[in-house]
Amino acid sequence: MYEIAVIGYGGMGSYHTEQLLTLPEEFHLAGIYDINPARIEAARSKGIRGFDTLEELLAEPSVRTVIIAVPNNFHKELSIKALRAGKNVICEKPVMMCAAELEEVIAVSKEAGRQFTVHQNRRWDRDFLIVKKAIEDGTLGKPFYIESRVQGSKGIPGDWRCVKEAGGGMLLDWGVHLIDQIMWLVKSPVKEVYAHLLSVKFPEVDDNFKLLLRFENGLSALVEVDTYTFINLPRWHVSGDAGTLQIDSFGCEGKIVRAKTSEMHWEAGIVYTVAGPTRTMAPRPQETIEEIALPEVQTDARDYYRNFRDADLGKAELIVKPEEALRVMRVIDAVFESARTHTCISVDI
Amino acid sequence: MYEIAVIGYGGMGSYHTEQLLTLPEEFHLAGIYDINPARIEAARSKGIRGFDTLEELLAEPSVRTVIIAVPNNFHKELSIKALRAGKNVICEKPVMMCAAELEEVIAVSKEAGRQFTVHQNRRWDRDFLIVKKAIEDGTLGKPFYIESRVQGSKGIPGDWRCVKEAGGGMLLDWGVHLIDQIMWLVKSPVKEVYAHLLSVKFPEVDDNFKLLLRFENGLSALVEVDTYTFINLPRWHVSGDAGTLQIDSFGCEGKIVRAKTSEMHWEAGIVYTVAGPTRTMAPRPQETIEEIALPEVQTDARDYYRNFRDADLGKAELIVKPEEALRVMRVIDAVFESARTHTCISVDI
Repeated sequence: MYEIAVIGYGGMGSYHTEQLLTLPEEFHLAGIYDINPARIEAARSKGIRGFDTLEELLAEPSVRTVIIAVPNNFHKELSIKALRAGKNVICEKPVMMCAAELEEVIAVSKEAGRQFTVHQNRRWDRDFLIVKKAIEDGTLGKPFYIESRVQGSKGIPGDWRCVKEAGGGMLLDWGVHLIDQIMWLVKSPVKEVYAHLLSVKFPEVDDNFKLLLRFENGLSALVEVDTYTFINLPRWHVSGDAGTLQIDSFGCEGKIVRAKTSEMHWEAGIVYTVAGPTRTMAPRPQETIEEIALPEVQTDARDYYRNFRDADLGKAELIVKPEEALRVMRVIDAVFESARTHTCISVDI
Repeated sequence: MYEIAVIGYGGMGSYHTEQLLTLPEEFHLAGIYDINPARIEAARSKGIRGFDTLEELLAEPSVRTVIIAVPNNFHKELSIKALRAGKNVICEKPVMMCAAELEEVIAVSKEAGRQFTVHQNRRWDRDFLIVKKAIEDGTLGKPFYIESRVQGSKGIPGDWRCVKEAGGGMLLDWGVHLIDQIMWLVKSPVKEVYAHLLSVKFPEVDDNFKLLLRFENGLSALVEVDTYTFINLPRWHVSGDAGTLQIDSFGCEGKIVRAKTSEMHWEAGIVYTVAGPTRTMAPRPQETIEEIALPEVQTDARDYYRNFRDADLGKAELIVKPEEALRVMRVIDAVFESARTHTCISVDI
């Protein structure tokens, strides 16, 4: 049985234990440790082993892998400690506060001969996999725009996520996921990074941001995370030279509309707004387009743990590679630099 | 009676004549001139006077004002010619190919003592005026994001609008309107200009673009014009620190959703996507928000002509001021520079 322990028993730590406990044939949850004794007791009350100290957990020989689910500013220290103790490490995202920290940790993992990666679980989200399949199937032709948005209206839950020093803010929270998804999807280097990071309700951190990325292949991506928007725009809007895909929300309602012909000539249509006519923005004749359903995809987020295990045992290629996480962190560094300097950052990532 | 003649009897030239003919008590359509004799005949067949030459039109003493509705690259030459002939000039947008040209024309208009302005008619569009009223009424609190989009799927109608030399492309077409609207709305200097100009189907010009503007007061605006998008995003999406407004299309369906309280604490809610939980993006409790209708506005695009006339006669302040058109052209110049250099352009406009 593959033994995994969890460090940090807050929101994400609890989530990991629950996920692993649904796979009793494949994984054994070796236990948890939390800096807060009340959280250790909470785990014990659910029948989960609670280690009294971090050292005790790391000294337990049966534990092959630890998951680190603590505030972002402790990721580096704990990852290095666990790797040096001979454990494989799955670190919550954002893996580190900046790319330089991640390089250090990757070096330690190589030195220790242990597998290290990041919990980029949102590569398994259904909305994302639908977009990925539609693009890979060529349904949209060559994509030229991707818009990926996550929006809420509750602000940032009032814990470490709104503290700058703790690695708070939306760029290091949802931003990391959305950037990772797009970089995994678009097989081309990032060349330009420009962002507006706003602090609408939480002065220390970015609570609403818009990011424009340009890839070497010409694709333009808009990534947006908002915590104070009361009417959500679609989760995904992707335009290709053969059609457009839209997914409204995590619920994955949406559609694809495609051109039925590459022919671009038709009778002039005109739309009148109050202030004037427009030919360009008049609708297409219906017979030149077709609406099709989004592709079906099946996904199980627990495949993340299975792939980590299989890669550790030499039976599979690791899906979330440390060097991919490093590319994402380099883009994140560039986003912060863009926001600080009010410039577009030229990169080759 | 206020006498107006129209130079160029294509799409917009015809539109102007039709508009003026609906106001027979206020304006007299003195006639038209077009470089194409067939267009002059077409006007005559509708009972409109067709001048045989441009010189004849400009020499007609009763003509007080001319409207110039020809391809963009002829705006400067014709505007100067008309001003020097002692006429007031309403020039179609984009007023010129660049800010330097406009400065020249403004200088000529001052020298000639004639009134010159641009047909920024979309300040009278109902969707825009609803946004303006909602913001000015304070309904959204302090706005921090404005997204203004116009999207079609027909490409660019195959005339001079897809020829670079003629001033084609979407930035100089719809882009000018959307930038003018936002700059008129936001009373703050533009500080940053960054754009992705794409040529998806028309290699010479931008047929799809995204533009991020940042204003000195911190507001971030996304302006987008697309001609190859098969599922439209909303025409307007505006976020303020008290609520969000959305207008779906030129038809002006839409709504405002506001926070009922500035209190930011509530029971933790969690949304589960396939790949994991999110507290931040869980919906707000319904009792903390309210949906309200968009404000009512009345608008008549013909007020554009009335205001021009009244300003000419010293009875009103000109609404579309040449110096405002110059600010817009300076932003347009910066957009082209951003696209050419792949950088964010720092400005103070």
